[in-house]
Amino acid sequence: MNEYRDLRVALLGCGSVGAQVARLILEHGDELAARAGARLSLAGIAVRNLDSPRDVELPQELFTVDAERLVQSADIVIELMGGIEPAKTLILQALRGGADVVTANKALIAAHGPELAEAAEQVGAQLSYEAAVAAAIPILRPLRESLAGDHITRVLGIVNGSTNYILDRMDRFGDSSEDAMRLASELGYLEADPTLDVEGYDAAQKATILASIAFHTEVPVDAVYREGISNITAAQIEAAKHAGYVIKLLAIAERLTSADGTDGVSARVYPALISRDHPLAVVYGGKNAVFVEAESAGELMFYGAGAGGAETASAVLGDLVSAARRHVVGGPGIPGSLHAGLPILPVTEVTTAYQVMLEVRDEPGVLAGIAGILAEHGVSAASVEQAAAPGDQASLVIGTHDAREGDLAAMVEALRASDRVVSVTSVLRLEGQA
Amino acid sequence: MNEYRDLRVALLGCGSVGAQVARLILEHGDELAARAGARLSLAGIAVRNLDSPRDVELPQELFTVDAERLVQSADIVIELMGGIEPAKTLILQALRGGADVVTANKALIAAHGPELAEAAEQVGAQLSYEAAVAAAIPILRPLRESLAGDHITRVLGIVNGSTNYILDRMDRFGDSSEDAMRLASELGYLEADPTLDVEGYDAAQKATILASIAFHTEVPVDAVYREGISNITAAQIEAAKHAGYVIKLLAIAERLTSADGTDGVSARVYPALISRDHPLAVVYGGKNAVFVEAESAGELMFYGAGAGGAETASAVLGDLVSAARRHVVGGPGIPGSLHAGLPILPVTEVTTAYQVMLEVRDEPGVLAGIAGILAEHGVSAASVEQAAAPGDQASLVIGTHDAREGDLAAMVEALRASDRVVSVTSVLRLEGQA
Repeated sequence: MNEYRDLRVALLGCGSVGAQVARLILEHGDELAARAGARLSLAGIAVRNLDSPRDVELPQELFTVDAERLVQSADIVIELMGGIEPAKTLILQALRGGADVVTANKALIAAHGPELAEAAEQVGAQLSYEAAVAAAIPILRPLRESLAGDHITRVLGIVNGSTNYILDRMDRFGDSSEDAMRLASELGYLEADPTLDVEGYDAAQKATILASIAFHTEVPVDAVYREGISNITAAQIEAAKHAGYVIKLLAIAERLTSADGTDGVSARVYPALISRDHPLAVVYGGKNAVFVEAESAGELMFYGAGAGGAETASAVLGDLVSAARRHVVGGPGIPGSLHAGLPILPVTEVTTAYQVMLEVRDEPGVLAGIAGILAEHGVSAASVEQAAAPGDQASLVIGTHDAREGDLAAMVEALRASDRVVSVTSVLRLEGQA
Repeated sequence: MNEYRDLRVALLGCGSVGAQVARLILEHGDELAARAGARLSLAGIAVRNLDSPRDVELPQELFTVDAERLVQSADIVIELMGGIEPAKTLILQALRGGADVVTANKALIAAHGPELAEAAEQVGAQLSYEAAVAAAIPILRPLRESLAGDHITRVLGIVNGSTNYILDRMDRFGDSSEDAMRLASELGYLEADPTLDVEGYDAAQKATILASIAFHTEVPVDAVYREGISNITAAQIEAAKHAGYVIKLLAIAERLTSADGTDGVSARVYPALISRDHPLAVVYGGKNAVFVEAESAGELMFYGAGAGGAETASAVLGDLVSAARRHVVGGPGIPGSLHAGLPILPVTEVTTAYQVMLEVRDEPGVLAGIAGILAEHGVSAASVEQAAAPGDQASLVIGTHDAREGDLAAMVEALRASDRVVSVTSVLRLEGQA
């Protein structure tokens, strides 16, 4: 194995992912060398505190607190510190010095991906971040490389494991929202600040990354329309089940034509109904999956673990081997250029279908009145189901045909304002249809 | 776009896939150039008969019958003729001339993959064949690149769409085996020689390719243990459903340790029971999916269309863009070396579980006798279910714990030979368990 050249790898951060990455580099040296065409030598591990406990026993002499110095001498830098700074500055230093960079930092890539990609391209270095979306699941490389000759039209992702766990508990085990949330928290599935998961902020960061790569367009994270799952009730879960659906928090990236004919991109996160026959419906527990629709390839799905130290490390190592190969070959990295420059369209331009549950006064003409409100907004009903309700009320479940989100939202407002409607108890979108 | 250099692409074959590939190259020139860093110019299309009808209207001047001459002047050769010859000779000529080769020819890669890969490596060219397994689904690139830093332990693939369609019709629509087969044939899902699908030959070719790539080891196609679905009955489908399983024809590639401690590889194809909770259980109709288990990444699944002109063309185009990038950069292609050289272990060394259905004489001591036969072969029962049967007989369904295939097969032989057993009506393996 001595004919291989050595590449110096700097590891920034040694949490649950970093420790596994260090272990794999140290333990699988010969195999990694055979696959990369170069020997990957772990030059050092930058940490904040030399005495912190680690998940894996690692040689103490590898540790340093001087991340900047470690980066300067590295051929490849693996950034697993998380957060924006000092990660961003260190990555820029590495790229400008010609090093390839591998990161799992979704917050950083969502906020500054285009700037970092540009810095990489200027020097012909490679920036890769497969682990930033859906951890172990190879999704960014397939989108960027395997589908390079295709046109992606839509991406639907279950990309936040903790909210999927919560919704799955409610669906399959009948848990209340509170119980499911408590269980997720006890199992350590939720971030320190649970609103990052529950309100869809984490999924929105991943939607930004997916949309950027799928459509070669810069999609700022604050352009992602976002609703979380905190208002999803057991009653909604039950009603969905009854109608043959399951509720999933989806990160959606879609090619779209607006009402005025503008071609653009939509990126959004919200809980939506999915048919139980849809491949995404059987993504249970904390698993992730990304469903891709492309013009030629048709429907594809990528499924697996969306979190975990070893699982995320697997994706980091895949990027590491790829970066090492590039170093051996010499040429520039695979370009991450966002050349399409499509406009980001607001959620009001999205075409979707609504399922609306409402309590109405059980009196003559109420159905005609409701139908009139739909018609006024250019929305047609695909199904109306009426259920008994206490007193002089009736429950209606209305499924609409596809319509523009803006019209559907206005229709719901009009329903809320109608004398005939006691209350609108649920509004959910229906996704995953052809 | 004029700063791009031109790469000459030769297309061999113009059937349903080839016609779509030609169309996409011609229609998406600018985009492909932006992604590949080179302009892909379609130098010609070699066909046997210039006057054959095509799926897509293409400029007549592109067609030629002189494949050899076309190959000589090409930078990249796309081989979509199928069959062994003249495809093999043309690919070797292309590689030796320094051209990169993209092919969807599973029969050729299964039979001569290592020889072709070696020819490519000798000149630093790239040979890729993503479309040869599971058409549109990116699976070979993820196995080879995304999981390059991981250890794959097992691959379970539904890689033949027509048999999956047949089994799915029997499972979900209650079709008889004959009806399902007739329907598949009418829909054009079966190969001209249906035994290629039904007896698992097609799946075995894909098992060879998957095993070779997952384990870096040459796995000859005749080393793949193979059983087809022609004997699967509606009664077996029903019994599987009753027990919470579904029957799928699986192509399996697995790292294995034999009884004597030898590390090796198993590649096999057979119909097996899968739990209805398993992600592979919901792969309906003619869809394909490949389920991968890896040490660090855990469980992954790749799902999509396993056939179709446009779908397969998508995978070919992905390989084409990758080959073009390599041409622009210059360095060698990603090595396909089979460096591990693990022995191929016979199916008797596989650890699996059996579900055996048998008719027995309904008399005292029969259960004890059956249990004795299991014990003699070192097999223990996980479950025994008894059902009423006509006359003085009883039906038993025995589920075993994991055991070596050799012991299980010997146990079944002993059951067949036993006086107490009237007949063994079904033997199926149970796969997809941890």
